[in-house]
Amino acid sequence: MVQKLTPRSVDDSTWYTDVVQAAELADYSPVRGCMVIRPYGYAIWESMQQYLDQRFKAGGHQPAYFPLFIPQSFIQKEAEHIEGFAPQLAVVTHGGGEKLEEPLIVRPTSETIINAMYAKWIRSYRDLPILYYQWCNVVRWEMRTRLFLRTTEFLWHEGHTAHATADEAMKEVMAILDIYRELAQNEMAMPVIPGRKSDSEKFAGADATWTIEAMMGNKWALQAGTSHFLGQHFAKVFNIQFLDESNQLQMVWQTSWAVTTRLVGALVMVHGDDQGLRLPPRMAPIQVVLVPIWKTEEERCQVMAVAERVRAELGQHVRLKVDDRDDLSPGFKFNDWEMRGVPLRIELGPKDVQNNQAVLARRDMPARQNKCFVSLDALLSEVRKLLDDIQRNLYAQALRFRDENTFHPGNLEELTDAVGKGFARAYWCGSAECENRMKETTRATIRCVPMDQEKEPGHCVICGQAASEKAIFARSF
Amino acid sequence: MVQKLTPRSVDDSTWYTDVVQAAELADYSPVRGCMVIRPYGYAIWESMQQYLDQRFKAGGHQPAYFPLFIPQSFIQKEAEHIEGFAPQLAVVTHGGGEKLEEPLIVRPTSETIINAMYAKWIRSYRDLPILYYQWCNVVRWEMRTRLFLRTTEFLWHEGHTAHATADEAMKEVMAILDIYRELAQNEMAMPVIPGRKSDSEKFAGADATWTIEAMMGNKWALQAGTSHFLGQHFAKVFNIQFLDESNQLQMVWQTSWAVTTRLVGALVMVHGDDQGLRLPPRMAPIQVVLVPIWKTEEERCQVMAVAERVRAELGQHVRLKVDDRDDLSPGFKFNDWEMRGVPLRIELGPKDVQNNQAVLARRDMPARQNKCFVSLDALLSEVRKLLDDIQRNLYAQALRFRDENTFHPGNLEELTDAVGKGFARAYWCGSAECENRMKETTRATIRCVPMDQEKEPGHCVICGQAASEKAIFARSF
Repeated sequence: MVQKLTPRSVDDSTWYTDVVQAAELADYSPVRGCMVIRPYGYAIWESMQQYLDQRFKAGGHQPAYFPLFIPQSFIQKEAEHIEGFAPQLAVVTHGGGEKLEEPLIVRPTSETIINAMYAKWIRSYRDLPILYYQWCNVVRWEMRTRLFLRTTEFLWHEGHTAHATADEAMKEVMAILDIYRELAQNEMAMPVIPGRKSDSEKFAGADATWTIEAMMGNKWALQAGTSHFLGQHFAKVFNIQFLDESNQLQMVWQTSWAVTTRLVGALVMVHGDDQGLRLPPRMAPIQVVLVPIWKTEEERCQVMAVAERVRAELGQHVRLKVDDRDDLSPGFKFNDWEMRGVPLRIELGPKDVQNNQAVLARRDMPARQNKCFVSLDALLSEVRKLLDDIQRNLYAQALRFRDENTFHPGNLEELTDAVGKGFARAYWCGSAECENRMKETTRATIRCVPMDQEKEPGHCVICGQAASEKAIFARSF
Repeated sequence: MVQKLTPRSVDDSTWYTDVVQAAELADYSPVRGCMVIRPYGYAIWESMQQYLDQRFKAGGHQPAYFPLFIPQSFIQKEAEHIEGFAPQLAVVTHGGGEKLEEPLIVRPTSETIINAMYAKWIRSYRDLPILYYQWCNVVRWEMRTRLFLRTTEFLWHEGHTAHATADEAMKEVMAILDIYRELAQNEMAMPVIPGRKSDSEKFAGADATWTIEAMMGNKWALQAGTSHFLGQHFAKVFNIQFLDESNQLQMVWQTSWAVTTRLVGALVMVHGDDQGLRLPPRMAPIQVVLVPIWKTEEERCQVMAVAERVRAELGQHVRLKVDDRDDLSPGFKFNDWEMRGVPLRIELGPKDVQNNQAVLARRDMPARQNKCFVSLDALLSEVRKLLDDIQRNLYAQALRFRDENTFHPGNLEELTDAVGKGFARAYWCGSAECENRMKETTRATIRCVPMDQEKEPGHCVICGQAASEKAIFARSF
């Protein structure tokens, strides 16, 4: 059913919740903080999974599966790790009708349980690298939740690798970050800024964290994927050693990395408009919807005969839905599929059939500019061309939006103003003092120090001291 | 590494645990009752997933995702359901550092949480049928565990459907059971007996349960998949109603169904031998392994050049591994890949290269009968033919084994003897009294009442009264 959406311009946050539910991506569950992912939302997640899974495997990574439960003592072994995760843990205290001797933690992330196994399996340099990942659910207790973006339980993959050298581990961190960047930009049509997290924002237990940061429609930042260089933190705690080629005992170097179902929320926030979702063709569960139009039974027969031919032919090449529901008007269907973000609509009426043509309507363009006639003989090639163009155009629109809302403040006052309006890109001296002062003054954080920047000398936007790198400052989800 | 396996003939149970670990299918974790599925084992599970996922989607089913946690009050709503699952529950009592007002159950199965959502979503006959399933983890506390076959946490899919009529729901139960049968027989090369569970063995909360039952190598039965007709049990408890075409309020009819990672264990138990795994080609992560053989560096170059050509050509059509490790002997590699169950081995030495040939060795035949020479020009067609033949032969071997170990007792004494040696197929009057008496006398259970049987009058093997159906009696995992 088409529901009345709160316009984005009126209230972005309510619009988001409205559209996620109206488009049947997800729903609230009776369990506090946990969502239900409905088939349409899950299909988007499956698109992301398929892309990533194929990329991971092409790079020699292997899927595996590790336990949901982690003994409390394990998760406490690495000091920074437990400090970071302690407030968010869900604890199983009873099993099979009895109180457990040691409580079990529902995994918030699996470094500890996985590295306990790596210590058992790794003996020699011949066992390295280990490049495993798993698709699973994790639980982090959240006070304020939001469908997809912040939920107590969410789905993700987590990669965990072990290498003979720090250099090789760093290459892995960067290779994965690049896969995430390509998922975001090429598949999701979502521009991202790859960069390094500040120490205060890095993963609990990592030497350093790299991230891709995206601007959402409300001009806030969203961390869309992270790749961690763990150094030897967990190797030391779990004693993961190997004999190198000279028969010397060495400790492994490690990485971990993840993206989550929050990416489905990102897709909504980056591209959506007052009418609802706008899905990039590569991610869309339905790329093209055909709406047949008729008044009389005779017209219905004529139109549906052609619609069935299109279904049989075009349906082999694109994800096509023929909306032949007979209890709803074409206008209702137009609105419904627009709200659900289907990139391209084919309208087919009796006159079109007579003229061997159809109307194509793009979701990425304003009404009145978005329609064209196309000969049915050229339908496949035209649909393909338009889908490619829509994919490119959504990216270009999002990039333009980010550029228009990125500012270059020169002092703290300008920075405070800038992060109220969008992203601020400015010099930062790298000190935690300046970072803290900025956080106290503004409601923003340092999202990352972009990798792609000229290393020219400048002055910290906060303290005015010498600085060599710019950072992205923004409010964030 | 090749490890010494306990022979099956000496101790089937130790053999099983040895081979699962030696072949790196799975390992014990530090969490009681939970296993780690290693990449080789996970790849088999992925084969099963891909097959089923494609079948489910072809039948109009849609994947979705529901919460891991179930409020305690939900799981207690259906009386039989909670009675069945109460002893096996894992309970979360604390989250985010605080004691929860209502404890959360880690899902042992998701009827209750999913049907709570269905009650919210279903309004009209136009919303039906709902055909959803999810791939996820579930937890059932187990006292005695066994890798894959019985673990506290396991992976599965669970399907949950809602229909307008009982008849349509029953058709769904049967359609799914048939998909499970075809997975077992055609993909896993595992003969199964489809049939109905007795009331004492049915799912807690179902009107009736259908199952596929397989004979393992130790002649015990394994329940390999179940499809439940839930009737209106959950519809009544969660009040799942819809307006039918005459605008009358009706209650939905439901099904649920699942297969789990225990199928990986079944694959091991059905086909394995003293040398280790024997994997049917359709399920094998590696279908063909090429072992190059050389002594001198010159020979190595000659052989590897051909091996690379085979990799490039054959590797496009079958899942091929070229074992070019230079620190291990060919004999070691032969044993290693035999232990891991690879269906077909290509041996390639300098003389073979000269003669434009290779040796093919089948895993499904005894040594000395399993080798043949083949021209390299005919390699692809020969490999395909042999893989098909191995798939068929493994099924035929398993079927012959089951037939040889299935008995037809005429009274309780013969039945007791029969279930000590294999399956017993005998008349049962259908009474719980006889079922209980049989359980007390033997260590067997009624596995199912096979669907495929002549309905001829006979006499119950336990009480001697009139009976019209035969049942399968066996010990089971």
